[in-house]
Amino acid sequence: MYNGVTFVPVFDKEALKGNPFMAEEFFNKRTVTCGQLTAADNGRKVVLNGWVHRDRNHGALHFINLRDRYGITQVVVDDDASPELSATAASLRMEFCVAVEGIVRLRPDSMVNKDMHTGEVEVKAIRIDILSTCPALPFMIDEETDAKEDTRLTYRYLDLRSGGMQKRIRLRHEFVKAIRQYLYTTNFYEIETPTLIKSTPEGARDFLVPSRLYPGKFYALPQSPQLLKQILMVSGFDRYFQIARCYRDEDARGDRQLEFTQLDMEMSFVTRDDVLELIEKLFGYVFDKVMNYRLPVKFRRLTYHDSMNTYGNDKPDLRFDLPIVDIGLLATKTNFDAFTGALAAGGVVKALRVPAQEGVSFSRKFIDGLAEAAAVYGARNLGWIKVGDDGTFTGGVSKFFAGLEDELSASLEAKPGDLLLFIAHPQWKKACTSMGAIRSKLGKDLGLIRPGFEFCWIIDFPLFEFNEETEHWEAAHHMFSMPQTEYISTLESDPGSVKGDLYDLVLNGYEVASGSIRIHDVELQKRIFRICNFSDEEAEKRFGFLLDAFRYGAPPHGGIAPGIDRMVMIMAEQTSIKEVIAFPKNTAAISPMDDSPSEVDGKQLDELHLIIKKQATV
Amino acid sequence: MYNGVTFVPVFDKEALKGNPFMAEEFFNKRTVTCGQLTAADNGRKVVLNGWVHRDRNHGALHFINLRDRYGITQVVVDDDASPELSATAASLRMEFCVAVEGIVRLRPDSMVNKDMHTGEVEVKAIRIDILSTCPALPFMIDEETDAKEDTRLTYRYLDLRSGGMQKRIRLRHEFVKAIRQYLYTTNFYEIETPTLIKSTPEGARDFLVPSRLYPGKFYALPQSPQLLKQILMVSGFDRYFQIARCYRDEDARGDRQLEFTQLDMEMSFVTRDDVLELIEKLFGYVFDKVMNYRLPVKFRRLTYHDSMNTYGNDKPDLRFDLPIVDIGLLATKTNFDAFTGALAAGGVVKALRVPAQEGVSFSRKFIDGLAEAAAVYGARNLGWIKVGDDGTFTGGVSKFFAGLEDELSASLEAKPGDLLLFIAHPQWKKACTSMGAIRSKLGKDLGLIRPGFEFCWIIDFPLFEFNEETEHWEAAHHMFSMPQTEYISTLESDPGSVKGDLYDLVLNGYEVASGSIRIHDVELQKRIFRICNFSDEEAEKRFGFLLDAFRYGAPPHGGIAPGIDRMVMIMAEQTSIKEVIAFPKNTAAISPMDDSPSEVDGKQLDELHLIIKKQATV
Repeated sequence: MYNGVTFVPVFDKEALKGNPFMAEEFFNKRTVTCGQLTAADNGRKVVLNGWVHRDRNHGALHFINLRDRYGITQVVVDDDASPELSATAASLRMEFCVAVEGIVRLRPDSMVNKDMHTGEVEVKAIRIDILSTCPALPFMIDEETDAKEDTRLTYRYLDLRSGGMQKRIRLRHEFVKAIRQYLYTTNFYEIETPTLIKSTPEGARDFLVPSRLYPGKFYALPQSPQLLKQILMVSGFDRYFQIARCYRDEDARGDRQLEFTQLDMEMSFVTRDDVLELIEKLFGYVFDKVMNYRLPVKFRRLTYHDSMNTYGNDKPDLRFDLPIVDIGLLATKTNFDAFTGALAAGGVVKALRVPAQEGVSFSRKFIDGLAEAAAVYGARNLGWIKVGDDGTFTGGVSKFFAGLEDELSASLEAKPGDLLLFIAHPQWKKACTSMGAIRSKLGKDLGLIRPGFEFCWIIDFPLFEFNEETEHWEAAHHMFSMPQTEYISTLESDPGSVKGDLYDLVLNGYEVASGSIRIHDVELQKRIFRICNFSDEEAEKRFGFLLDAFRYGAPPHGGIAPGIDRMVMIMAEQTSIKEVIAFPKNTAAISPMDDSPSEVDGKQLDELHLIIKKQATV
Repeated sequence: MYNGVTFVPVFDKEALKGNPFMAEEFFNKRTVTCGQLTAADNGRKVVLNGWVHRDRNHGALHFINLRDRYGITQVVVDDDASPELSATAASLRMEFCVAVEGIVRLRPDSMVNKDMHTGEVEVKAIRIDILSTCPALPFMIDEETDAKEDTRLTYRYLDLRSGGMQKRIRLRHEFVKAIRQYLYTTNFYEIETPTLIKSTPEGARDFLVPSRLYPGKFYALPQSPQLLKQILMVSGFDRYFQIARCYRDEDARGDRQLEFTQLDMEMSFVTRDDVLELIEKLFGYVFDKVMNYRLPVKFRRLTYHDSMNTYGNDKPDLRFDLPIVDIGLLATKTNFDAFTGALAAGGVVKALRVPAQEGVSFSRKFIDGLAEAAAVYGARNLGWIKVGDDGTFTGGVSKFFAGLEDELSASLEAKPGDLLLFIAHPQWKKACTSMGAIRSKLGKDLGLIRPGFEFCWIIDFPLFEFNEETEHWEAAHHMFSMPQTEYISTLESDPGSVKGDLYDLVLNGYEVASGSIRIHDVELQKRIFRICNFSDEEAEKRFGFLLDAFRYGAPPHGGIAPGIDRMVMIMAEQTSIKEVIAFPKNTAAISPMDDSPSEVDGKQLDELHLIIKKQATV
């Protein structure tokens, strides 16, 4: 549906009109864009500015497809052209930037292109000026290119001319524009927060910015405006948003960028459902406006526990079904040691029914592939049963279900031709995520994924996670999230069971936003810091300004921060955020175009009171 | 007029409605805001959330002015209140954050406050919950505070609650919103450019960001997205804007911040007047929308030379007149050495008529004050004449004009009671700026400044300036600006006379935007680099990616970048940009709230391969 969006280019002709102050013109300026002319313009004298998209000779005729952001117009140099004009036309090469003056005329019937807005007309050139030339291209400017990533990024100015990149950058613009337009009508202020702030590392690494005025001191680039937006709530701004640039100095891992953009939001005097509802309305508006796509009024809500249990992760792709089923009760009736052993150890037995698929054989190789995907998440064994045409169970672990066939069939709604899969594990989470990996693989491999956009909320997350390495509890999300009220009295005695007022927004299997109701009470905030192994002194040193702010009449507040890059990537049906960022870094955190990061003058380092540590000593 | 703007608060009641998913509420959530209730709500049961703005006892009655972003509502605890409610009311202090449940009732006629939207009603409290408390305040929350800057910045969360800061942050939001709304309708894409880029220092110092992955290498924070926006034009995006954060590591000088925000814009296939016209329309729309203020359709245009000559600087405040007059021709007829000497040395003689002012005596002290202001800019002497009631000249340099009185009077349109001032200097610029300093001082001191907003364009700037220190020519603006076409053949032979296709936008005596038509030709760009003393090798090393981009079919393009902070400051009738930035640094580049910049962990420095140079060795 992304390609089906109709953006009508309305060029501001007013802005092109001459006026008494007009500076001397140094080129033949366009009077129309390349996306604008129709049969109604027949006979009109026009000037076009744009790029030679394609050109070809046809006998003595010269055809030029002239391209700008708004479209393509066919220019013809007729055989009656002056020798000078013909020579200019012959000298054109792809991506020359030119000004063409000419007369609009109707194309011959046989040449009309109904698929193009300008397909009924062509412009008979009477003058062509070359505004700038172009050497042989490293890759063709087309809808998409198969050039290597680093080639694309080195010549990003050419890559961005492709139809695909033009559309995606436009989509991003339209997406952010629609977000703003909605929030403008709902009492939000857009407020800018500083990006040279105090380093308060926790979670990811901060990027640091050395101070020249204060030797040995540094600013940090924000990982998010979290503390500042909370302080804005303490300041009484009530409803805040910002399209905020955020920074994380993380190791290259998958599709991450050093800097990324989020819709940062915070609201005062709200509970969780106010935030969820606002986001549902916001994206309902935005998807309608930008994609012409209707979202449901309410998004599905799953607790973290249910999502793990049923989909094997906390960012389920709901564009396909394949629910995971717990067969613990049934498994106790088997005499299968792998099942009973896991259950006895406090674990679980999970099953998944793979419906019979036209043309898909549930071969040993097929099953091994699934077992491999599961093993990554800790499942050592994958049990399986094939359901025969007559409903009988064969192969794998079928013998252990002797006498239990009907009960199992009923639990899983098994049908002839199905494949049934089983994972038993003493750890609930590992059983879930292992089966979840299988579910995800099946969704893709079997082509089960329906088109469209499936949002859901994951709620009731645990507030703390135990870090086996440091042997400390730490915040699962961040330390500023509110525990659900019923757990407040048992925070210290049983951190592991505490649920937080946390919520994630999931879209098509990606986490696209994360948020929470925040703590606004100094004492509660200090208890959380202590549980996360921050001494009062350390907490005061790092977060003292937030604690101070909380002392002066802080309101209840909460917020969320949808990731812009990732959402646009999903909307544009891409798998890398680099496809929706104008100038991304490559996976090695380098910009091949300008070759950053780069060495700097010794003078610059001197001014910053810095010495580079010699490589050998690292 | 800024205080006259009416923003109607329309709270989204929808978002507050209960729904089946409602999470457990941990406070008594508002059903209305504090700016909303009127006589029409009489008898309604409501919940308000907000801050205790003021409270007072009146006999057994307790009055609370409850404040939120939307307004103030008067809450009354009647003498029939429960002992518990009365006790809670008595315990309230300023800036406690509370939830009040109560019944709306009409105020007694004598208590109606017509100046408040909620002034007809009060809320009889039936329940008050303290959501959070507040200790004694470092300063009162009022319209404005006279607390010291560092106190305000330390407690910025309190300072931002003041009426003035609330209004200014809102004004900034409305200003940027209106800018976007206009640009959304005129084919601009908002495109984000990276903020971790290559360091290409020229002009101001770059802020550097050390790379962890590449020891000894650095990213830089952008001084502006200049090169990237030009590359976007090469990429065919045609019309771009961005509300862009920019960074300059400059020494604290006046009212500067380390980071600031500009409306960054660039357009392809345009000449100067297209850019000027777009900006006139943009701000025409914005000032109408945000300030209810009508700007002229066209802004005045002054050449750099005329502006210097007539107003003594290149950012004239046109809210008052006092034009500077050149009396060179007349001065040759005097036998005053100071005049004739300056003229003989190629200089000028400038005069300024100060009209007689009710209640102002043009005393010796008054004139000395003006002379002092002029001396800063290089004028060693200030000549003066008083025009008597009968039109005769007395005092100062009057004797040198013997016989020339009528001619001088005619030149300056002198009237009885006026003061005439004269500056002669062998350097045109010093004569102009010296007299300009006097003009500026007079405008303020004599209260000549009319209210309102006076925009003007300064055009035809010199492209190069000679740096006496380095003895090189350098770019007056930046190296990417187009010379006016008639000077292209004499760039190298006479750089000093080259005019550029440059333009500044001036508002009320402040430069608020700067822009130019850019070079889009590799060879011309290289000539400019060479004139600015960059070797081809050095230019290629620093700006190679721009030159590369220009090789591949670059379009003619130009742009401008209005400063957001400064424009909002002027609109809010403030004299410091700190008044329109939520979390500014102080003049020492420190944030007293979070105490940044600060020292960081040794581990962080190790990871960045950095050693701090010992202070002693600096």
